[in-house]
Amino acid sequence: MKDFGTVAIVGVGLIGGSVGLALRQRALCERVIGIGRRQASLRIARRVGAITSTTVDLAKGVAEADLVLVCTPVGQIVDLVCQVAHHCPEGTLITDAGSVKQTLVEALDDRLSRGCRFLGGHPLAGSERGGPGNATSDLFEGRVAILTPTRSTRAEDFDLLNLFWSKLGSVVIQMTAEDHDRAVAMTSHLPHAVAAALAAAMPETYFRLAGTGVLDTTRIAGGDPVLWGQIFALNRGNVLAALDRFAGCVSALGDAIRKGDQAALEGLLKLAKKNRDALGS
Amino acid sequence: MKDFGTVAIVGVGLIGGSVGLALRQRALCERVIGIGRRQASLRIARRVGAITSTTVDLAKGVAEADLVLVCTPVGQIVDLVCQVAHHCPEGTLITDAGSVKQTLVEALDDRLSRGCRFLGGHPLAGSERGGPGNATSDLFEGRVAILTPTRSTRAEDFDLLNLFWSKLGSVVIQMTAEDHDRAVAMTSHLPHAVAAALAAAMPETYFRLAGTGVLDTTRIAGGDPVLWGQIFALNRGNVLAALDRFAGCVSALGDAIRKGDQAALEGLLKLAKKNRDALGS
Repeated sequence: MKDFGTVAIVGVGLIGGSVGLALRQRALCERVIGIGRRQASLRIARRVGAITSTTVDLAKGVAEADLVLVCTPVGQIVDLVCQVAHHCPEGTLITDAGSVKQTLVEALDDRLSRGCRFLGGHPLAGSERGGPGNATSDLFEGRVAILTPTRSTRAEDFDLLNLFWSKLGSVVIQMTAEDHDRAVAMTSHLPHAVAAALAAAMPETYFRLAGTGVLDTTRIAGGDPVLWGQIFALNRGNVLAALDRFAGCVSALGDAIRKGDQAALEGLLKLAKKNRDALGS
Repeated sequence: MKDFGTVAIVGVGLIGGSVGLALRQRALCERVIGIGRRQASLRIARRVGAITSTTVDLAKGVAEADLVLVCTPVGQIVDLVCQVAHHCPEGTLITDAGSVKQTLVEALDDRLSRGCRFLGGHPLAGSERGGPGNATSDLFEGRVAILTPTRSTRAEDFDLLNLFWSKLGSVVIQMTAEDHDRAVAMTSHLPHAVAAALAAAMPETYFRLAGTGVLDTTRIAGGDPVLWGQIFALNRGNVLAALDRFAGCVSALGDAIRKGDQAALEGLLKLAKKNRDALGS
């Protein structure tokens, strides 16, 4: 079954590479063209089997694409999608894997040239270890992939991307870009900010005393600072609101400890445990 | 080699059970007596092979002990050590595995009856999944175990516990109880408070969007609320100081996002990544 024809992936890092690997291992397309800026990354992506062929020339790379997926850091997506729309076949569907959606959708929805359309996507998968060398074909299995259609979105475009992420093993959820950005500010961007603040607060002299708890709690702080700086900037309002909500919980915990109010303290810890247990493992 | 004779373990949960398993699998003692309040836990501990025999009678359990290890939640340790000292053989060394040390050492150091001595210990190992059913013989391997001797501590007692944790695979570090409590407030108690606040802040409607990042960051919030309430209460000053330090980093991050100061934001995220990378995996 070759559902998706020629798929061009712009940006072959962890996400782009894993999409390529998954498409090829499941024989879901004819070809995967990897497009990147650095030959070194493209070479790794070829070596791990993520792509059929590679190029650093965007125009050439998308020239025969049936579907284009932009998997670069989120700050570059708008510009790249516009470039893609100039060079891909007329009427091509372009999607992305960016962690922020509203600014992208505002800039790109119903605005592309030559009959091309943009439909935003966001697979909730990743790792603090980026790059195509860490790509795996099962990265999206059992994970949620969010699509953010608008009033302009064609049903067949939505159906195609719904099929795309479903075939990679994901559970597809449809949200508005606005709802998406508010939700992931809490579930993804806030945890990153918290992990980063905790790692930044840690005095070097105590590193040797780090147990599994602090390692787990700070793990995602090992992610790319530039990428995350872009995400926070592009989702500023929601991230600040999430930080405020979190700061309220930290204050409540601190107050209970300060006052020696064990009932309040245990109440908060019980709510935390209840929520954490419900999140699963 | 039967270095440690008869070892009595008061409180056979994850830590006590894992110590018992490790002692028995490495043939480091003649007998491991498990002492608990609930037959159900003791039965599990027996079934997993963590102990030779069990009792709910503390006096009987420690009557022939060469070494007593108290592995209960930290709020019960002082009282239990005093009880142990009344019933164990004269001159027995008693130690613990509690996450807080200063209040314990103040209450117990050089104060026990019948020539018994208390020397505080804290293996930096654990899991949000408690209970003897989760015990493993390698829980302490490659982990740090802290001992908190005082001026009254006998060299042979320190040497024995140094050998004890070393034989279980740990790297033993000696600190004052005061330094210990200040250090673990940052490396263990703060991460727990942060994970709990983050889990408590998470709206239920977003749970289905949880990715690996928030799961890692909140994992330890699944720990026992009563146990952690005791730890925070017994290390109040240090935990509050650690929370303040963390809140400063959260504020700095929030300010940089609010002002759109990408240089400051990336600077903080880079420091966080540098620290996290240095902590290891």
